[in-house]
Amino acid sequence: MGEFELIQRWLSHFDPGSAGLVVGPGDDAAVVSPPEGDLVLTTDALVDGVHFLSPRWPPEDIGHKAVAVNLSDLAAMGAEPLWLLLALGLPSPPPGADWLDALARGAAALARTHGVSLIGGNVSRSPALSLTLTAVGRAPRGQHLRRSGAQAGDRVYVSGALGDAALGLQLLLAPGQAQAAATRPLIAQQRRPTPRVALGQGLLGIASACLDISDGLAQDLGHLLTASGVGAEIFLGALPLSEAYRAHQGDRPEAWAPAVCGGEDYELLFTAPPAQAPALAALSKALSLSISQIGVIEEAPGLRWRTPAGERWEPPRGGWQHL
Amino acid sequence: MGEFELIQRWLSHFDPGSAGLVVGPGDDAAVVSPPEGDLVLTTDALVDGVHFLSPRWPPEDIGHKAVAVNLSDLAAMGAEPLWLLLALGLPSPPPGADWLDALARGAAALARTHGVSLIGGNVSRSPALSLTLTAVGRAPRGQHLRRSGAQAGDRVYVSGALGDAALGLQLLLAPGQAQAAATRPLIAQQRRPTPRVALGQGLLGIASACLDISDGLAQDLGHLLTASGVGAEIFLGALPLSEAYRAHQGDRPEAWAPAVCGGEDYELLFTAPPAQAPALAALSKALSLSISQIGVIEEAPGLRWRTPAGERWEPPRGGWQHL
Repeated sequence: MGEFELIQRWLSHFDPGSAGLVVGPGDDAAVVSPPEGDLVLTTDALVDGVHFLSPRWPPEDIGHKAVAVNLSDLAAMGAEPLWLLLALGLPSPPPGADWLDALARGAAALARTHGVSLIGGNVSRSPALSLTLTAVGRAPRGQHLRRSGAQAGDRVYVSGALGDAALGLQLLLAPGQAQAAATRPLIAQQRRPTPRVALGQGLLGIASACLDISDGLAQDLGHLLTASGVGAEIFLGALPLSEAYRAHQGDRPEAWAPAVCGGEDYELLFTAPPAQAPALAALSKALSLSISQIGVIEEAPGLRWRTPAGERWEPPRGGWQHL
Repeated sequence: MGEFELIQRWLSHFDPGSAGLVVGPGDDAAVVSPPEGDLVLTTDALVDGVHFLSPRWPPEDIGHKAVAVNLSDLAAMGAEPLWLLLALGLPSPPPGADWLDALARGAAALARTHGVSLIGGNVSRSPALSLTLTAVGRAPRGQHLRRSGAQAGDRVYVSGALGDAALGLQLLLAPGQAQAAATRPLIAQQRRPTPRVALGQGLLGIASACLDISDGLAQDLGHLLTASGVGAEIFLGALPLSEAYRAHQGDRPEAWAPAVCGGEDYELLFTAPPAQAPALAALSKALSLSISQIGVIEEAPGLRWRTPAGERWEPPRGGWQHL
């Protein structure tokens, strides 16, 4: 399959175009007529052997995750996703056409869910399969969420559940356990994270600071605190843990550690003044998505953890290291 | 050097921001307030061992080329470049800090020339060094250049000179010859191509179709003809060849072949009605950039080559294959 046939086949899985698209794939660049408001742009790469293992992962899941991690960055800014560009790196010889079709299907399915079209891209040879996506979204003019903005007295919240993706990765790296039905939700969370797109937009005007948890609660909360110039106390007993997580961790001491240190949950971590609690409850209900208060922002810099028994605790390590 | 120090150091080489930048690097995504008009977006990757050879190339040149190939795509659409995003893939262990500084300097120098800032990005591990850039530009509303639009009777033009980059690559792959002073311009064209940004914008309202030559004249002109639903006759004696090219090729039979089939010139290939000849002459003079008429668009599909002696000729192969 040549480059041009491959691109045509890839594109056939995506919806043909979206509002504002003037020139789509096939020319030197895409042309869009941007809607009112600000534009929000992010780029993120998934590399075989680093972010996924192509022989063991269903290609649909790899495609899904590549789109998910980029949409998650838009969600963390409160933006509505509009367009994607893809730089696809293919090893030589490339994977078969069926495998690549499944990869495209996984990416396209999540893009379609959010009304996002693929407006451009590029294919090149690469020593490992890689998908580098750029996502472009829209936010109302002057309105977006940032890491800075948290103030003493704000509450700290997190969406969904924490740590499932980290446990899922442990299971995937020890394939013997991966077949157990009870662990499937953990593996699904690692391979098919849900970008919290609607929540991010709903938090505009409510949250004082926000980011998505890609490197782990401890590390990402550290970024938010540094950017905001504040500190926080976090209550480990308040961390939202799924049934599958609790079942897997059982009576282990410090059973909360993967929820604190494990990356790739792609939940939103945000702060809001206490007066926003009713608005958050309404948003949680409207989106059928749990929002858990896990701590309090304090003036004193630093991150303080407290166990369910009221003891101070320190996480074993800082979070996911990209390099 | 950790991820965050690396990113800070990388960013320090770039100009801090440009018009319309609301949120720059350091948050989950960049926020921009787009100017009037349409936006033009492209993404392109440079991978070690595929598009360059890191041990043998000066890192400044790799950085330069990564930016150049993306700005060239914007130029081919007639867009003014505004912003860049970078997904940097680093092997383990990563190159040293000095080497990475030089890589950033090369990218930043060309970005600065065009008033472009780096508004976001990402670093991840990768089996080979790679730079995947996304470039965003602006075009007046409803005005841009496309591959389609060439009509029978239009003339075919190309900027600059053809084939130097292909000869430069041959020389780089046979390092013995690379030291000769006479061949330096060929190697420079391979490693430090000039995106024809001002020319692209100048061609708005003049050119009927346009693209940049990345895969070679034969292949890229084929794309333009297919997109436009026309054919062309090209006169090999009219191809613009540099002094260094002529000196290197000497009396070889079919000395024009690298200019026809070799990729990576990043010159603009475009068509325009004959009535635009004076406008093109003025543009050429204003930009101090040669514009050569190399052929004529015809109704009959297909690409016909004619030698200086008036004979028909067929190129030996179709052009650069990405896969």
